[in-house]
Amino acid sequence: MGTIKQVALVGGTHGNELTGIALLRHWREHPDEIARSSFAVETHLANPKANQANRRYLDQDLNRQFHIDDLGDFTLTGYEHNRAKALNSLLGPKEDPRVDFVIDMHTTTANMGMSLIFNTDDPLVVGMAFYVQQQMPHATLFFDNMPSRLEDNFLTSLGRYNGFLIEVGPVPQGLLRADIYLETQQAAKHCLDYLELYNKGEVPELPKVRQGYQFVEKVKLPKNEAGDLTAMVHPNLQDKDYEPISKGDPFFLTTSGETIAYDRDETLYGAFINEAAYYDVSVGLSLMRKIDIELKSEPAAG
Amino acid sequence: MGTIKQVALVGGTHGNELTGIALLRHWREHPDEIARSSFAVETHLANPKANQANRRYLDQDLNRQFHIDDLGDFTLTGYEHNRAKALNSLLGPKEDPRVDFVIDMHTTTANMGMSLIFNTDDPLVVGMAFYVQQQMPHATLFFDNMPSRLEDNFLTSLGRYNGFLIEVGPVPQGLLRADIYLETQQAAKHCLDYLELYNKGEVPELPKVRQGYQFVEKVKLPKNEAGDLTAMVHPNLQDKDYEPISKGDPFFLTTSGETIAYDRDETLYGAFINEAAYYDVSVGLSLMRKIDIELKSEPAAG
Repeated sequence: MGTIKQVALVGGTHGNELTGIALLRHWREHPDEIARSSFAVETHLANPKANQANRRYLDQDLNRQFHIDDLGDFTLTGYEHNRAKALNSLLGPKEDPRVDFVIDMHTTTANMGMSLIFNTDDPLVVGMAFYVQQQMPHATLFFDNMPSRLEDNFLTSLGRYNGFLIEVGPVPQGLLRADIYLETQQAAKHCLDYLELYNKGEVPELPKVRQGYQFVEKVKLPKNEAGDLTAMVHPNLQDKDYEPISKGDPFFLTTSGETIAYDRDETLYGAFINEAAYYDVSVGLSLMRKIDIELKSEPAAG
Repeated sequence: MGTIKQVALVGGTHGNELTGIALLRHWREHPDEIARSSFAVETHLANPKANQANRRYLDQDLNRQFHIDDLGDFTLTGYEHNRAKALNSLLGPKEDPRVDFVIDMHTTTANMGMSLIFNTDDPLVVGMAFYVQQQMPHATLFFDNMPSRLEDNFLTSLGRYNGFLIEVGPVPQGLLRADIYLETQQAAKHCLDYLELYNKGEVPELPKVRQGYQFVEKVKLPKNEAGDLTAMVHPNLQDKDYEPISKGDPFFLTTSGETIAYDRDETLYGAFINEAAYYDVSVGLSLMRKIDIELKSEPAAG
């Protein structure tokens, strides 16, 4: 697919995740920090109106609106439906995008540390994850299953390559933590460095395989008929992202104090444990499977 | 002032602080847990509309609307202005309240642990703080300065006694943490137990004096002309609520990475450090002074 010419650094896809938004502001005043010699970098605040309102979104989650069918569906008329189409014009069009690569900066209330989320096994993208992890060994690789770039509904799928989410936590919505800000800044810098090395054919030797976590499914918190939550993430599970959950382990705690145990036979791993953003759909956590992620070939353009 | 006959347990004064709201629901199904023999307990969701919207407030912070002048000012017509007047009818009127004591359950994104906030040196109220701390020794006493109950703008000032805030953190807005839920439940139970002991003349021996923190002032984060924050709470200060801050200590970190030092001569202590709710007024933290809080006489009715 050739070299990378145009990279979009995006923040504020969720309007109350302030870290990426503050970094975009910082970089507009310090463009040298994100300038690289072999490609152009543009910065975009994805959902300014949700940011003004200090909300994740106004009408619907922007980061689920980029499926090719939805981008072409003009009966979808919510604010984020329209915003997605506008971003498709700006960065895409999805079928033949102007932008080569989108890096989207997110935060989570879950204790996920530095998580690198990607949806494709393309060597360029997997190579970016491995490279960033080489620089930041505490980073976790989070592989989400998406059928194809065109059917992917994330903003990062607008680029010619299916791009990359930097997801850092824990941090509450609507505030800046300096540690999370600095981590995100570092990770974004490494992503850009990697693309520069790629263009120059100078990507250092990367591991052939690394351990990561593959998304399996989301688990809902129990509710009563009135729609109110009747249980919470169990204290033993809270903050234990990427740790194993085995049959019989405490999973939820009802508001009356009874423990509900995890009842699957397969040991899985939690992620997005008690993410505030998922309360609108009563999701308590994601279950993940530990996997080996393969780098299928050398990501060497140049 | 005689015995306590009517107690209001309040949650959701800030609509995105879900802990108190979940406890109110739990207690409506388990009324025995908050029933006491010598007084009646009523439960109130203070700002249901903000809770539905998962916001702190719709128009203005409800917990600043209870100054006697504002309650009588009918030119104040925002949602929370009106809600305050409605609560004044329900619990007050402030000048001669129906309810004896209001206990209001709050959470904070700051690392304040179990904080007991009260605005008066009345022995009944100070006795409650000392009693709860006897049961929960990790609790911190937070004394806020208010001129008088009538001029106090907190919801808790609607009671005949100027009541009591249970403030627990850290927890992000818009989610439930089981540990914070259980802590809040315990503290509320101890408050009710104390009032029961008070009515029966059986309050155990309490310390004459305890160390606490007195509110001094709020400190704003720096902004640029566009109104955007240009600095964050310094990583060395983040999560260090109730720890000393002395001249020269790192205080803020600019988004460009420069440290701004604390420049006052007096060593003070932080609280509400990086509280998300205060970003609307760019407040980074509260400064507190360490003080001795005195129990001026035995809180013995009976």
